[in-house]
Amino acid sequence: MTPHARTVLIVSDHTGLTAENTARALLAHFPDQPLKYLQRPFVASVTAAQGVAREVAALADRGERPLIFTTITDAAVMRELEAAPARVFDLLGPGLGVLEEEFGVKAARSVGRYHDMHDQSGYLARMDALDFALATDDGLGDRQYGLADVILVGVSRAGKTPTSLFLALQHGIRASNYPLAEDDFERESLPIPLEPYRTKLHGLTIDPRRLHAIRTQRKPNSRYASLEQCEHEVRRAERLFQRAGIPVRDTTSASVEEIAAGILAQVRRG
Amino acid sequence: MTPHARTVLIVSDHTGLTAENTARALLAHFPDQPLKYLQRPFVASVTAAQGVAREVAALADRGERPLIFTTITDAAVMRELEAAPARVFDLLGPGLGVLEEEFGVKAARSVGRYHDMHDQSGYLARMDALDFALATDDGLGDRQYGLADVILVGVSRAGKTPTSLFLALQHGIRASNYPLAEDDFERESLPIPLEPYRTKLHGLTIDPRRLHAIRTQRKPNSRYASLEQCEHEVRRAERLFQRAGIPVRDTTSASVEEIAAGILAQVRRG
Repeated sequence: MTPHARTVLIVSDHTGLTAENTARALLAHFPDQPLKYLQRPFVASVTAAQGVAREVAALADRGERPLIFTTITDAAVMRELEAAPARVFDLLGPGLGVLEEEFGVKAARSVGRYHDMHDQSGYLARMDALDFALATDDGLGDRQYGLADVILVGVSRAGKTPTSLFLALQHGIRASNYPLAEDDFERESLPIPLEPYRTKLHGLTIDPRRLHAIRTQRKPNSRYASLEQCEHEVRRAERLFQRAGIPVRDTTSASVEEIAAGILAQVRRG
Repeated sequence: MTPHARTVLIVSDHTGLTAENTARALLAHFPDQPLKYLQRPFVASVTAAQGVAREVAALADRGERPLIFTTITDAAVMRELEAAPARVFDLLGPGLGVLEEEFGVKAARSVGRYHDMHDQSGYLARMDALDFALATDDGLGDRQYGLADVILVGVSRAGKTPTSLFLALQHGIRASNYPLAEDDFERESLPIPLEPYRTKLHGLTIDPRRLHAIRTQRKPNSRYASLEQCEHEVRRAERLFQRAGIPVRDTTSASVEEIAAGILAQVRRG
């Protein structure tokens, strides 16, 4: 928090996720600006907006000009924000206007339409996918490959678990996984349990030095974490992916968002 | 997928998460419009954009007027989309222009600034929080309350695990949990392991009928899942929350996004 950081207020009538995502996507294009984020979710009334406007006024009194990013759609609530001494980014308003024209109907402009449970079936699918990912990730039980949308294949700590949880929570995709181990490398062909599910398989690989660093955090000075072992496993895993014709993603410098988007694009192409 | 559904294309030079979030936030205000989503992530070149424009042209040939929601910031790539026979929603362009003026510098307009790993420390904090949530959620080991940012308290299947995973993946918050059981109800005061961490505690409650339904899916016809048992546990848990002065959230019809946003607002207020 730099002393001269500009304040970015994320103001939403609901969770603020959309507003914060968009604000960060915009502000990432100005990497040298020192910024300080303040989240103000659930601002759904004129009174609540007046509270935010007072905070902004206090900042302005100290010579600052804050930035407000908001997804509020209620006109009266928005007026309170627009009266505050700040630059206001109305993230949904212009789009709603265009869509009203496009569809020839008025926008609902009700609070928190998105990220609540109005899409009940979509929400339940995501929670169901999360249960699935957790239940099939414990390394014990049945991995239920038949019920999975995708099966992530890779050595231990290559990124299978975070990716499967993100696929579930964000996209409602049921991801199971197959951890590659010594037996599989000896066979040099697709592990038998995976044979029936070739089209669901996605390989994850990683730079052996990065894998070594990750495993060392978990089990320092173990054979499991040694650079030699990591190099061996990654080399054999990549050979197996190649022979079996499994699409591979390198997780070394990819975020779970990126890995998931790549897998999803492939799934949707069918 | 209704036959006359309008096609919504989510076009991004990167994961497409911001574009899809914003599109869905906008379109949620038009609940009666039949829509069909097509995701086109990683459209980072003129050639890729021309491919999307051809898809749009094919839809237009069939008499449709698709909607394109895009976060692309490269002018040449954007021109290809704007030439397509569709209504284009340029989600970042106008905001970038205003910010350039506000900051007095040019936007970077590089591909995928957000949702990649350029914010390495923030990303690692999220992955670390996820490991923490998984490690302390297994019901076996140490729950490491001292290291947790928040501790979720509630009966089995009240929503502790999905909430802790979402807090970690989205917000980088380290959430541990305490599952309430019969011993705790008998004491009628705060469980001893939680005593030192009062300020970190967040109670989760749920409608007993909903809890009954969730548990029945897991263990049909068990005492654990019976409505009577669910009513008993929820009543005692709520009494405990009240006596101990723990803030409580009802998860019955709240999404993990909503629960997490509420907890986060409280954490940030300190």
